[in-house]
Amino acid sequence: MKKIDIVISEVGPRDGLQNISAIMPLPAKKIWVSALATAGLREIEVGSFVPARILPQLADTAELVTHAQTITGLTVAVLVPNYQGAENAVRAGVDKITIPFSASETHCLANVNRSHEQMLEEVRKIVELLKTLPARQRPIFEGGISTAFGCTLEGHVPEKKILELATSLMAAGCDEVGLSDTTGYADPAQVRRLVGAVKAEVGNNNLTGLHLHNTRGLGLANALAALDAGITTLDSSLGGLGGCPFAPGASGNIVTEDLVYMLESMGLRTGINLEKLIETRQIVQAALPGETMFGFIPDAGLPIGY
Amino acid sequence: MKKIDIVISEVGPRDGLQNISAIMPLPAKKIWVSALATAGLREIEVGSFVPARILPQLADTAELVTHAQTITGLTVAVLVPNYQGAENAVRAGVDKITIPFSASETHCLANVNRSHEQMLEEVRKIVELLKTLPARQRPIFEGGISTAFGCTLEGHVPEKKILELATSLMAAGCDEVGLSDTTGYADPAQVRRLVGAVKAEVGNNNLTGLHLHNTRGLGLANALAALDAGITTLDSSLGGLGGCPFAPGASGNIVTEDLVYMLESMGLRTGINLEKLIETRQIVQAALPGETMFGFIPDAGLPIGY
Repeated sequence: MKKIDIVISEVGPRDGLQNISAIMPLPAKKIWVSALATAGLREIEVGSFVPARILPQLADTAELVTHAQTITGLTVAVLVPNYQGAENAVRAGVDKITIPFSASETHCLANVNRSHEQMLEEVRKIVELLKTLPARQRPIFEGGISTAFGCTLEGHVPEKKILELATSLMAAGCDEVGLSDTTGYADPAQVRRLVGAVKAEVGNNNLTGLHLHNTRGLGLANALAALDAGITTLDSSLGGLGGCPFAPGASGNIVTEDLVYMLESMGLRTGINLEKLIETRQIVQAALPGETMFGFIPDAGLPIGY
Repeated sequence: MKKIDIVISEVGPRDGLQNISAIMPLPAKKIWVSALATAGLREIEVGSFVPARILPQLADTAELVTHAQTITGLTVAVLVPNYQGAENAVRAGVDKITIPFSASETHCLANVNRSHEQMLEEVRKIVELLKTLPARQRPIFEGGISTAFGCTLEGHVPEKKILELATSLMAAGCDEVGLSDTTGYADPAQVRRLVGAVKAEVGNNNLTGLHLHNTRGLGLANALAALDAGITTLDSSLGGLGGCPFAPGASGNIVTEDLVYMLESMGLRTGINLEKLIETRQIVQAALPGETMFGFIPDAGLPIGY
């Protein structure tokens, strides 16, 4: 496998589909995930283990995990809101589990109806579960700190709060923490500052990934700032599908196609073939007719000599 | 006047309007320019001194300059393609003249029908003209190197070519040079590299401004890279109006509203009131009904506590 500089974690099948009312049929999801992997994606968040009554769009996550696990070299990631979700994820055999943990307690209660202390207790229980697994079968467990750059309910979230949470999550047994700009509030200076501070707190290798939104158009500028701060994994979604349904007014992931274009233009290797990636848009468009897909590079085309 | 960190040079009245077939009436232009200045813009490119048969949209540039000169503290900038344009600009009494000089000779010929040597001769003639003026009346003269990051006709433009041109323009008597990503080919790594190289060649204070496009979605990321490289003046246009009509497929300036939002969020002072700036969109929408205006922040709204 070729060496890469930046891992792009495609979240379209999870974050994209959960924000669309139409349900993509499982066969189309399988074709999409396979096509993304063929285009060079090494990590795909294929779904979320939440009750089907809450997110019917992701009810087939276990089956999609089973399919994705047949693809060589692919890190199959999922989101889980709680212990129950983690149990299902382990049963399905995922490679990576992220639990979203909102730094804004108001948002946390609105999103998963749990206080911070209750969430930490859930994290500890999941760690105990994972410890029972043989090392080879144990998924990576990430504590994903959401609303890390501000909250549409609480507004400013103090940096001190993020540092405390990051420390608590590592102490509870997470393998790593991530930061998520759930609300699209982040700016490049803040990204550099907060990433630096969290890395200093929990260790350089324990914060490697960011989940950024493009709500206010700063998605790629924030991604650039993240690179400067030493981030090596960036979340994005094909066509910019998705966002956070519980944060009013917030929508729009970074567009994978544009992110790949930026990184590769800068000489950073993603391992992704941009033409093949752009072709995979057709799968989504066929399976979700009428759904808006974003992105500049699919419209503008590649520069001559790219 | 309050201290500012970054000058935003609004190019909507020139670059925006020249790319729209409808002609904005002069009274609306005056109201727009005044409203932009009231919102805090310190530099506005109000037009271009080109023959009316080529750009009828900008035929009233002299009158608009006269109006703009009544606004205290505003730098009134214009584009000129040649000596004749510079003469008209001087007669109108502008504060700043930029001559676009395409680093791609193919593009230069397509755009103004002149070779590089003919363009340099034109620059020298303009310098001679400006020398005849009393120092207080002498506008700043910028050599604006266009297609500096690549050309839709020639493709890659060698860095060596840009350095040579920058040196030639300074030697010919320009006060400063600027770099323009006419085609939307720039990436952040290239911006840092090229700005650094040109500054090293002509002196730090002789390259302070960039004109970036958002054709491939990298506008704000490139602006961030420009800041890192020591750029202190950035061109943008309200609603992202405009682009370069002679570069096929290239369109879309950086959106002023989003640029101001990014800079101010980062703690950089622009002197611009974002709410007032967003209000000025209504003037354009009323005067150019049906024209698409871009921008994330006008739709998404400001974060709580901004």
